[in-house]
Amino acid sequence: MPVPMKYILVFNAGSSSIKFALYASGAPLQSIYAGELTRIGSSGSTLSVRHRGGASSGGEPAGASGHEAAFRRIFSWIQSVDAPPPDIIGHRLVHGGPLYADPAIVTPELLADIGRLVPYAPEHLPPALKGVALAAELMAGVPQVACFDTAFHRSMPEVARMYALPEPVRRQGVQRYGFHGLSYQYLLTELRRMGERSADRGRVVLAHLGHGASMVAVKDGKSVETTMGFSPAGGLVMSTRTGDLDPGVLLFLLEEAGMSPQEVKEMVNRRSGLLGVSAESDDMRDLLELEASDPAARLAVDLFCYQARKHLGSLIAVLGGLDLLVFTGGIGEHAPVIRSRICNGLECMGIALDERRNGENAAVISADTAGAVIRVMQTDEEQMIAGEALRLALLR
Amino acid sequence: MPVPMKYILVFNAGSSSIKFALYASGAPLQSIYAGELTRIGSSGSTLSVRHRGGASSGGEPAGASGHEAAFRRIFSWIQSVDAPPPDIIGHRLVHGGPLYADPAIVTPELLADIGRLVPYAPEHLPPALKGVALAAELMAGVPQVACFDTAFHRSMPEVARMYALPEPVRRQGVQRYGFHGLSYQYLLTELRRMGERSADRGRVVLAHLGHGASMVAVKDGKSVETTMGFSPAGGLVMSTRTGDLDPGVLLFLLEEAGMSPQEVKEMVNRRSGLLGVSAESDDMRDLLELEASDPAARLAVDLFCYQARKHLGSLIAVLGGLDLLVFTGGIGEHAPVIRSRICNGLECMGIALDERRNGENAAVISADTAGAVIRVMQTDEEQMIAGEALRLALLR
Repeated sequence: MPVPMKYILVFNAGSSSIKFALYASGAPLQSIYAGELTRIGSSGSTLSVRHRGGASSGGEPAGASGHEAAFRRIFSWIQSVDAPPPDIIGHRLVHGGPLYADPAIVTPELLADIGRLVPYAPEHLPPALKGVALAAELMAGVPQVACFDTAFHRSMPEVARMYALPEPVRRQGVQRYGFHGLSYQYLLTELRRMGERSADRGRVVLAHLGHGASMVAVKDGKSVETTMGFSPAGGLVMSTRTGDLDPGVLLFLLEEAGMSPQEVKEMVNRRSGLLGVSAESDDMRDLLELEASDPAARLAVDLFCYQARKHLGSLIAVLGGLDLLVFTGGIGEHAPVIRSRICNGLECMGIALDERRNGENAAVISADTAGAVIRVMQTDEEQMIAGEALRLALLR
Repeated sequence: MPVPMKYILVFNAGSSSIKFALYASGAPLQSIYAGELTRIGSSGSTLSVRHRGGASSGGEPAGASGHEAAFRRIFSWIQSVDAPPPDIIGHRLVHGGPLYADPAIVTPELLADIGRLVPYAPEHLPPALKGVALAAELMAGVPQVACFDTAFHRSMPEVARMYALPEPVRRQGVQRYGFHGLSYQYLLTELRRMGERSADRGRVVLAHLGHGASMVAVKDGKSVETTMGFSPAGGLVMSTRTGDLDPGVLLFLLEEAGMSPQEVKEMVNRRSGLLGVSAESDDMRDLLELEASDPAARLAVDLFCYQARKHLGSLIAVLGGLDLLVFTGGIGEHAPVIRSRICNGLECMGIALDERRNGENAAVISADTAGAVIRVMQTDEEQMIAGEALRLALLR
């Protein structure tokens, strides 16, 4: 007997945007529509949708003053279009804490657990939880599934999960969680589908370089180390975040420069990184246009690539070598010059680009002589969430 | 005309101990005596001295309740022994800030400049400045020279010196300085004396692993990157310090766990690292004895080695390869098992130990087949300070 068609609605809420998509079950999943409401909280907030087959709305003003308004606008759009109602709703939740290693059906207990994690991801969890609450209100009765960005990294060994802090502090959950797990799981699934053996047996680094950015070291299919740790502010230099810091920096700002913890938090999360160094833009595309004439923009780009190269070196040290390197995310997929500047000088670790292939954003961009294969791949967190939500719903 | 003999008295003040030594000019410098007053501030504070030729006092109670008392005890000892009075006094100052790239004669202007740097190194500068003040009082008229631990790293490129913070914050001197510079300069001087070509032309990592620990990447004789940054708390996991952290960790402790900045500072500097993880000891020797039976001690040792390996990988990425690796400092010189666990799995970067040589703490411990030479060397900050102070005094 054939399994009846199921429709899965997915929400992926970020700090200033919400992506959403509807999929029909099947192998592979079929996208019915996919949309994004961007610039939440600004007067320029915009809703864009792309339908299967190609029709797309170019972006209409959304008037979304906050995440609640943004979700309500999206639900109203969903209920206005000629598309099947969802059987399952999947959400990306950035943090599953120590409790959640796998996707889970949303229950009152789960919401209580995740609510207690808000202090661990104060910028990222509340918007997603708002979406869960509104879906329960506006699409009552449809089961919801939570997929966690931290889950993929639960396989990290203890030595990679811990900070060198006293035990009473670590017992409060102050450990390295890692993020971008749904993106990494999607890439590994795709690599397996493509027959790439190192996805299951080998030493792989996946580099998700977007507004947020991280890398993961994957050994024999499992995360063994990643650049982000306790919060999404750690690891690499990002669009607006600092990455890892000497603790003395924050203590100086608090004790000597007279900043409050709230001001420091706002600065390290929203006014640092590419934006802080360039004083111009948090968008790599802008900076690459500016850098020929603007030394601060050039420095921001250089610092991003330099820190990425350092972290790549440390992940290769953890893996004891490299078989496959994958670039993904907005920057990773579309900026050949960034990939080139990250890889430059790493021949000693088996990394060498074919600059023609790299310039064309080809699927494989490594030189034939290189020890490691280097790929460019498109990631798709929403499809990963849809697949996981469907799998869980079918298991019930 | 022969240069008349000069005597150089050196002070190297740490947070809980003061090393001191007297040298006679010459090539090489001759040590007349060398001593250390340890455990300042505890009831067990002890003064030990070793004279040229071998006579040594095994350690007498010093009754040093603080750094002033400790320095007064040392000066009183110096003035009581049958040794020449110093012509020059050299001090290690941990921080030279943006102003001081070279050793400098102590003047009222220099003291005012360094006084303003105390917020940048609140644990380390005040004891050394106490020594400068007492030397001026008790050995009036003897010129004093300040040698800076940050100076060696002034050659780091801008991209290695900066954090991804907004410009107004960076303008306050929040940048990566690096430390242990006097130790690194000593090692390079020794390597040159031994005819090691890579000290001037090549890719070198020097690993100073002691109570404090850092590594430096040296390219063609110059520091291009180092693990410590703004303060001595950054970079590697150390005896009592955390190393680099996700900024989200400190913000969580301040905002959610209710700690004050002062409490966080005390914790990340004095109760973390090996001590925090093991809950037993900040001394690697103790932990290596305990680790077979104590999982927390084992974890502390593992974390130390793991983080050192990661940082080593990132420095090799910066250098684009490795010609020479040097281990020094209490742990680096005397703990073969630590060197082995740091290097383990780094064959992909040209690193391979000869375990017999390593077990013997031999001068060269790399396997003959390895791409990089690996050495164990004794460092001597006091001799470096004496040499620099003498050079500066002769130039006047």
